Amino acid sequence: MSQHALSVTREQNFPEWYQAVVRDADLAENSPVRGCMIIKPWGYGIWERVQKGLDARIKETGHENCYFPIFIPMSFLAKEAEHVEGFAKEMAVVTHHRLKNIDGKLVPDPEAELQEPLIVRPTSETIIGDAFQRWVKSYRDLPILINQWANVVRWEMRTRMFLRTTEFLWQEGHTAHADKTDAMAETLRMLEVYRSFAEDVLAMPVVAGEKPENERFPGADNTYSIEAMMQDGKALQAGTSHYLGTHFAEAQNIRFQNEAGELALCHTTSWGVSTRLIGGVIMTHGDDDGLRLPPAIAPKQIVIVPMLRDKPEDAAVVEFCTSLAAELNAKAAFGEPIRAHIDNRKIKSADKRWDWVRRGAPLILEIGPRDASGGNVTFTRRDALRDGPKVKSHSLPRAEFVAGAEGLLREIQGALYADAKKRLDGNIRTDIASFDELAAYFGPA
Amino acid sequence: MSQHALSVTREQNFPEWYQAVVRDADLAENSPVRGCMIIKPWGYGIWERVQKGLDARIKETGHENCYFPIFIPMSFLAKEAEHVEGFAKEMAVVTHHRLKNIDGKLVPDPEAELQEPLIVRPTSETIIGDAFQRWVKSYRDLPILINQWANVVRWEMRTRMFLRTTEFLWQEGHTAHADKTDAMAETLRMLEVYRSFAEDVLAMPVVAGEKPENERFPGADNTYSIEAMMQDGKALQAGTSHYLGTHFAEAQNIRFQNEAGELALCHTTSWGVSTRLIGGVIMTHGDDDGLRLPPAIAPKQIVIVPMLRDKPEDAAVVEFCTSLAAELNAKAAFGEPIRAHIDNRKIKSADKRWDWVRRGAPLILEIGPRDASGGNVTFTRRDALRDGPKVKSHSLPRAEFVAGAEGLLREIQGALYADAKKRLDGNIRTDIASFDELAAYFGPA
Ligand SMILES: [Zn+2]
Ligand SMILES: [Zn+2]
Repeated sequence: MSQHALSVTREQNFPEWYQAVVRDADLAENSPVRGCMIIKPWGYGIWERVQKGLDARIKETGHENCYFPIFIPMSFLAKEAEHVEGFAKEMAVVTHHRLKNIDGKLVPDPEAELQEPLIVRPTSETIIGDAFQRWVKSYRDLPILINQWANVVRWEMRTRMFLRTTEFLWQEGHTAHADKTDAMAETLRMLEVYRSFAEDVLAMPVVAGEKPENERFPGADNTYSIEAMMQDGKALQAGTSHYLGTHFAEAQNIRFQNEAGELALCHTTSWGVSTRLIGGVIMTHGDDDGLRLPPAIAPKQIVIVPMLRDKPEDAAVVEFCTSLAAELNAKAAFGEPIRAHIDNRKIKSADKRWDWVRRGAPLILEIGPRDASGGNVTFTRRDALRDGPKVKSHSLPRAEFVAGAEGLLREIQGALYADAKKRLDGNIRTDIASFDELAAYFGPA
Repeated sequence: MSQHALSVTREQNFPEWYQAVVRDADLAENSPVRGCMIIKPWGYGIWERVQKGLDARIKETGHENCYFPIFIPMSFLAKEAEHVEGFAKEMAVVTHHRLKNIDGKLVPDPEAELQEPLIVRPTSETIIGDAFQRWVKSYRDLPILINQWANVVRWEMRTRMFLRTTEFLWQEGHTAHADKTDAMAETLRMLEVYRSFAEDVLAMPVVAGEKPENERFPGADNTYSIEAMMQDGKALQAGTSHYLGTHFAEAQNIRFQNEAGELALCHTTSWGVSTRLIGGVIMTHGDDDGLRLPPAIAPKQIVIVPMLRDKPEDAAVVEFCTSLAAELNAKAAFGEPIRAHIDNRKIKSADKRWDWVRRGAPLILEIGPRDASGGNVTFTRRDALRDGPKVKSHSLPRAEFVAGAEGLLREIQGALYADAKKRLDGNIRTDIASFDELAAYFGPA
């Protein structure tokens, strides 16, 4: 074992360290398709926790999920293009609907060219606006509050896993309201949902505020964001919420009859977060041994490594681990059953431990024959792995460990937040008064 | 009110009746993109219930979720094309990565043509196989058990909402095993997961069995399916599970070192269900008043309609409904909190009732001043809406209704299953001995 579990430290090379965490924590890998990643089970498991937690909050605030087509007719973008000098947008364009083997070579069938090309959605603003225009007739239909979990595609020239990829996963909320007051309240409500989710669940302290005019979403009257501070001192935009005024309603003819019987334009909003949040979690909590996961989003919160030696005592160890996992899984933390897992892979115990260290499992238990016979649990806390250069082990009587598991997980969640908060606060200069100045100070991520 | 809530009955025209349910239950609508649908909140809510229930079963059987790119390089399909005379496949083909405004006209930028066209995934077999080939090295890596929830695209010429659409949502399981025994056990295990899910959760009785050779998935050694019987007497293929032998492993070079140190081919499987299941639910449970939803998958199980009249008694009705909903939501059914909902829309109470009838909410409560003051609950059961031509109302003391709500929901779930089962059994002729004969008798859906 070298001094750290990763081959490169944050200080040596932050971007390379980031790639090392993505690889060594087994979160994702490059695919044969340029700029698209394969999200592996551990990375996708984190995304599932994000989805579940955020989806509940999106529903609690009155939104319903829908699903809109992945394709957008090219003509939907024509209006925008008309008004923009030198309009050129990087998007995946579908032009054919058939592949054919012609003279032994596979090609898009020239006879199957689409009359109108289709765009793979970079965002669903236009196709959802088109639906709103059909759905909204009267003030009684308002507000319309919907959300979609989907994949989107933006043809990026330079990609970084989770942070900027050609295809990514996200949620996009789209709402229509009778007036500005209602729409602005929605915009700020969702900004607050993002802020509290980032802080309470991802343990990622953020600054929530308004973006300066030159960083607004095109067509937005106001764009708000949550910005987190990464360990390289740069800000990461982790979520945005836009008040779109009546611009989109005008472009897409989203009108309603108000209580006075007059036709009026809707005020619309949109807001979204994406798999980029996982990049934020890595750069907020990772250390030179790999990822550290807040327990609330760890796919497995407690990993049990049985220390087996092909000896008769193994049976007692296996039985101890099995009943311990069952006991832990029957308890709750963060309002859900605890996620405890026994690592039964046919590899060396030490390799298992370091694998879970790099993946960032919050609690790693190593159970040997002495633990089993003595009724003890030996464990490491991933949030505080080392004491100086040495790995720090703790030991507790089994009953005490089980009884305190929930509290321990909460403590780890809190410690990760406190660590990051200290960094954020230490970096905010008191002479910076506004969010704009703050953004200018941090610079783009 | 005509005799039924729908404008067309099953007997008059089954395909038109199907479209009427999709429209009047507000499940989905056509989009501006040919063959792609917009899944509306009520339809998507059903899909969310399907996802949640099935995902838990997929995880319980040891699978983990991943995410693979939506695009597949054209070359991945070349091998298949080489061997197929007159190969021509309907797929969405991406050929450009930029739109440009040229002389005032928006076009795919000729300077941004992809060197190799990309296919929007019709299934992820090839791109997942490519990953397996990298991931599998030794017998210790096996089995690999993964699943993906995703959108896929198949360019369909004739589409029917939920049953056959150009884009649809599904899950696709892909697994790799050391030998045939293990792979075949997996294939049948997932078939059984689909069977039990269809019957226990969707209340949709199915026949599980092997498909005849001419209906196998191309490249599969064995294809199994669950087939449900629709009310027009036709079978609907509702899920498939394939044992792929070593054919895909050979084509994609998925090899591993076995315990003897020799290189061997993996045995692979794949299995999937899609939004087509919602079409199956409609055609299994719908009646001439609209959809009837099994409570286990109803986005709202109990809908409360307050009968308000702009009179002082309204306050007591609102208070009664609010506390009743809270009381119900605090109870559980099918292992989850009950989903009770108050319909506060600003439309007539009678319109609300019929809206929920058409949507298929299992229990519809209409609460007026007399219910509120007398402490009663007046309700209709959607599984047994009418007594002859008349709508049948029930009344129970509030405490009794609340105490019995879980049982009532279970009773409705059971009644819908029993209805469908009777139909299936009544249609299975005892002289049909095999699944092939059964499939031939039913004909394709
Ligand atoms: Zn404006
Ligand atoms: Zn074979």
